[in-house]
Parts: sequence; C-alpha cells; structure tokens
Amino acid sequence: MIILGLDPSLSCTGWGVIRAEGSRIAHVANGQIKTDPKAPMADRLAAQQSGLAAVIAEYAPNRAAAEEVFVNKNPQSTLKLAQARGAVLAACGAAGLHVNEHAARKVKKAVVGTGGADKTQVQAMLKVLLPGVKVAGADAADALAVAIADAHLAPRL
Amino acid sequence: MIILGLDPSLSCTGWGVIRAEGSRIAHVANGQIKTDPKAPMADRLAAQQSGLAAVIAEYAPNRAAAEEVFVNKNPQSTLKLAQARGAVLAACGAAGLHVNEHAARKVKKAVVGTGGADKTQVQAMLKVLLPGVKVAGADAADALAVAIADAHLAPRL
Repeated sequence: MIILGLDPSLSCTGWGVIRAEGSRIAHVANGQIKTDPKAPMADRLAAQQSGLAAVIAEYAPNRAAAEEVFVNKNPQSTLKLAQARGAVLAACGAAGLHVNEHAARKVKKAVVGTGGADKTQVQAMLKVLLPGVKVAGADAADALAVAIADAHLAPRL
Repeated sequence: MIILGLDPSLSCTGWGVIRAEGSRIAHVANGQIKTDPKAPMADRLAAQQSGLAAVIAEYAPNRAAAEEVFVNKNPQSTLKLAQARGAVLAACGAAGLHVNEHAARKVKKAVVGTGGADKTQVQAMLKVLLPGVKVAGADAADALAVAIADAHLAPRL
C-alpha cells in the first residue's frame, strides 16, 4: 500500500509518500511544490495542481491523506489555504485517489503519541519512524506525518 | 472578446459566457455544473474542474471573471466554497485564462446601477442586457452578471 500524505498551501504544498505493509512503514519520497508569489492566483493554483499530478503519476499511490481543514484566525489566510486545498484535492480526485482526512490532533497522536506535540517533536519522530529520511522542509515533514498517521488510522481502507 | 463569468461552489458552479465588443455585449451561453452531494470531496472538486474545462474548451474565452471571495458567517461553508473556488480557478489557470476578481457590490452596480441591488433585480436586468437569454438557474445568473460587470470594469484587459 502506497500512501500519499499532503499538506496543501498556496505558496508551498508539502507531499510525502510512504509504503505501509501492516504495521511496517517505509519512506519512499517527499518534497515541496512552491509557487511564485507574484503570479496570478489561477496560475499558482494550476501550478500546485500540475506539480501534484506529476507526483501522483510518478509514485502511483493507492490513497491519499490530508489534515482536516481548520479556520485560521486570519480569514484571508483561511481562504487562500482552502483554495489551494481545493486545487490539490481536485488533482487527487482526477487521478481516482481517495483522500482520507484526519484531525491535526489525531495525526500528532499517531506519530508522537500525544495530540499536543509540537512540530519539533513530530520531526524528531519522523527520523525514528522513517530511518535515513531526508525531509525537504517543514511542509514535507507535515505531509509525511499525515501519511504515517493514515497508515495507522485507516489501515484497512 | 469572449468573457467567462464564474460563480463557483461545491454543489453547483454557475458559468456564463458573453461576447463584448466595446460597449456592446451579447449572450453566448450559460449553465451550471452540479456535483453529487454523496460523492467524496476530491471527486466533487475534480468534477467541478473537468466540467469547467469542457466549457472553456467549447467557448474559448479570452478571459474569466469571478466575484471576490468573502468570509461567510459559517466557517465550514466558507471552507467548502473556497475549496471549490480553488479547483475552478486552477482549471482557468491550466487553460491559460486570466481571472479578474470583482467585489460583489461592484458587480451589482455595473449590472443594475446600485451596489445594494438584490438577486431579483440583477436577474431582471440580465433579460434587458442580454435579450432573449434563457438562464439555467440562479448560479448561472450570478455568473452572467459577473461577466457583464467584467466587460464594463476591465474593458481594456
């Protein structure tokens, strides 16, 4: 089972691919898709989408996973984030990929053991759970975390 | 100049195509793209996107226009709407279409003459401005309104 974890945003979408066989997981690949902040919104969204379509084509995941959306304190940030998420999820849908959604607390609990873990703890656990992994950045780390959580939370999907 | 007006939403995206030559405008086509409320989010977003890609391929607009996003009273509705908007704008970006964004008040002012106009007034004006038009529904009407507004507000783009 190949799982694609996603951490979508307009400026930088993190992605992480793992292989899960029962309770064993292994790292396959991870990366970040960045867009030009000066480009028009529609172009940036299209770039997120085509970048992700290329990842899906290369690693042929069986399913995808993302954290549930939340409403940010800044409404404009929330709207930007949700638009990017829409473009990214549409790319999954177009590829026939089901996307499991998990609450942020459940992702942290699955990876670190506590829902209140901070980013540093999550990133430290990634190195334990995926030995030798080189993480492309903070967004790719979040994407790998949601992929690992998905392997635990939705093992039979 | 062919202008594609858009009123994106997850359940039903309205679209309207007009031809604008200087101050003269004419109706070309309009419609609504509906998705199955029971389908997974990613599939619904992909359906919005492929539906819109077909419209763009058929009518080959020179540019697109949509109302600016706003934050709804219901945060979950806002997130759904913004995700749908992201998928729809990405389809425009992928087709190389620039999307002008206009405030809702400016759209109403351009179509009816007052920013405080209600939907009934907007729909009545559509029949005056686009003689003989048959509107597919309320979302298609909103899409035609934003296309007309765009012809007035961004004539030289």
